[in-house]
Amino acid sequence: MSIVVPFDTMKDTIYKVMKNLALSDEKAETCARIHTESSADGVQSHGLNRVPRFAEYVRLGYVDPDADPELMAAKGAVENYDGHLGVGITNALFCADRAVELAKTHGIGCVTLRNTTHWMRGGTYVWHMANAGYMGVSWINAESCMPMWGSDEIGVGNNPFCVGIPREKGPIVLDMAMSQYAYGKLEVYRLAGQQLPYPGGFDKDGNLTSNPGAIEESMRILPTGYWKGSSMALVLDLAAAMMSNGKTGVVLDEENRGSCTGCSQVFIAFDPYLFGTKDEIQAMLDKRVEAVRKTHSIDEGQVVSAPGERTAITRAKSLRDGVQADETIWEEVLKLARV
Amino acid sequence: MSIVVPFDTMKDTIYKVMKNLALSDEKAETCARIHTESSADGVQSHGLNRVPRFAEYVRLGYVDPDADPELMAAKGAVENYDGHLGVGITNALFCADRAVELAKTHGIGCVTLRNTTHWMRGGTYVWHMANAGYMGVSWINAESCMPMWGSDEIGVGNNPFCVGIPREKGPIVLDMAMSQYAYGKLEVYRLAGQQLPYPGGFDKDGNLTSNPGAIEESMRILPTGYWKGSSMALVLDLAAAMMSNGKTGVVLDEENRGSCTGCSQVFIAFDPYLFGTKDEIQAMLDKRVEAVRKTHSIDEGQVVSAPGERTAITRAKSLRDGVQADETIWEEVLKLARV
Repeated sequence: MSIVVPFDTMKDTIYKVMKNLALSDEKAETCARIHTESSADGVQSHGLNRVPRFAEYVRLGYVDPDADPELMAAKGAVENYDGHLGVGITNALFCADRAVELAKTHGIGCVTLRNTTHWMRGGTYVWHMANAGYMGVSWINAESCMPMWGSDEIGVGNNPFCVGIPREKGPIVLDMAMSQYAYGKLEVYRLAGQQLPYPGGFDKDGNLTSNPGAIEESMRILPTGYWKGSSMALVLDLAAAMMSNGKTGVVLDEENRGSCTGCSQVFIAFDPYLFGTKDEIQAMLDKRVEAVRKTHSIDEGQVVSAPGERTAITRAKSLRDGVQADETIWEEVLKLARV
Repeated sequence: MSIVVPFDTMKDTIYKVMKNLALSDEKAETCARIHTESSADGVQSHGLNRVPRFAEYVRLGYVDPDADPELMAAKGAVENYDGHLGVGITNALFCADRAVELAKTHGIGCVTLRNTTHWMRGGTYVWHMANAGYMGVSWINAESCMPMWGSDEIGVGNNPFCVGIPREKGPIVLDMAMSQYAYGKLEVYRLAGQQLPYPGGFDKDGNLTSNPGAIEESMRILPTGYWKGSSMALVLDLAAAMMSNGKTGVVLDEENRGSCTGCSQVFIAFDPYLFGTKDEIQAMLDKRVEAVRKTHSIDEGQVVSAPGERTAITRAKSLRDGVQADETIWEEVLKLARV
């Protein structure tokens, strides 16, 4: 079921899909790279696996391959763009780059984007800012897929929150969704006939459960940290909509045009060397991360790691040995790549 | 055990404690108000209950009542201060106000503070920015009190992350610690002879448990959302230290001068009406919050609420009927108030 595809083969194939969807050469190249990198990093759910849905969204008119972000207004260190339902990945990368440019002038830069489309893997954009040498903070709002704590009815989005720390020895990157498990993860466990390692939601009778199928049925997926995750998801929704003068998750629910169509995103970049030298700051980061590696592991022979460190190992392995892919999805993408 | 103290009585009493600790009139007034408001909001752990420890820290020289924040450097929308181990509350309020001033000019304002002391309740500062009409984002780093995920040894701080949304009908405020339960909460359940509602850590044999005493013994308190909470805590630590050129939690551990002594804090303010009119933005926020209240509650007769809404109700009740306090702690604070 799981096969291995060389990185360049996967990227070239996705490029052809994007060209068949009438994306420009540049947009097709960027999307092919980002989808492939996400799979290479072990995040297949938002890499190769999302290509068919992206194709469907272009066909449905949810995504306009020709649209580009338009500057609506600006003040000081902040710019606001309308994404015009353009390609989520290229819209978001554009805004992340603008945030970095604003940070060069103002120390901090903030770009808010409204009316954009699914950006695929959230971590991509703070990773991008960290690779450019800037700390990045980014989040999104989305349609509802999770109950607020205290409710059994879907009422808030699984709005990811991402932070990237530009460590020269390898960025430290948080890419945190507001549900304990993604629906995609529940499916993986159900198909494998396994229980979740920790409870992931409530069954239809309101009992906390580790049975993935029971949660898929009830749709009562558990917020990260119970009451905390749905509160944070709500606040991120309000903040993204307010800062971009965009739409909240409730309006996205009313419009009902698939996942993240018309959503808002926020990109904040910060110059890490405003107040300390590069040597000082990097030594501080290294010492902190080293302390994580030295902390006692409960698994003999394992090393406790900082977020992002394992991703870098997975990426290197994928570049060397090929990228893991689900065979059925790969066949589907190959079909989309044919003219 | 629990008594009720009129708001003004509590505030006046704490004021006397602060004056006995040689705080200026203005600092004593501010600290008395903030500690009392925290208790009035139902956050006794960081209100009245923290007054004795603050007094101890002043006596130990951990907190210098005479020190004030000093501007170290600035660029564009960012300012960096050294807190010189001054009073945590007044240092932090000063920086939150500076962030708002910077946001007036630059759309966004960011103030980073190093070498400060415990700010008590994290939500105070984003609540303060929201009351001034600005969105606030704020976090801190602290000494380690929680294991990284995968470790059984304390390795990261319970660094809170706070966001305040300036809704005119009442701010929506996230004040989120990175452990599922605070140690103070474990104690409350243990003293009441109760189990936690959900697992809050591992016992010394590595089993997930809802027994508060077993977690206090192992010190293996559970991060919010398991692996997620300790990753976010680490990233907030790195970010706070990097942005302020301050100390990471690891250095605070080495210095071992009590809770948060020498820590770093970040204050970001954002002008909510940069890209939409006040009417538009407020209507958007109200519609989103109303949707939370309309979502179906699992508890008949209860209403699902957004974070901050219940706090406002608790505050109003405390102002009307008096502030809940632990009798033993109240007696202790009364003693500290006597000359």
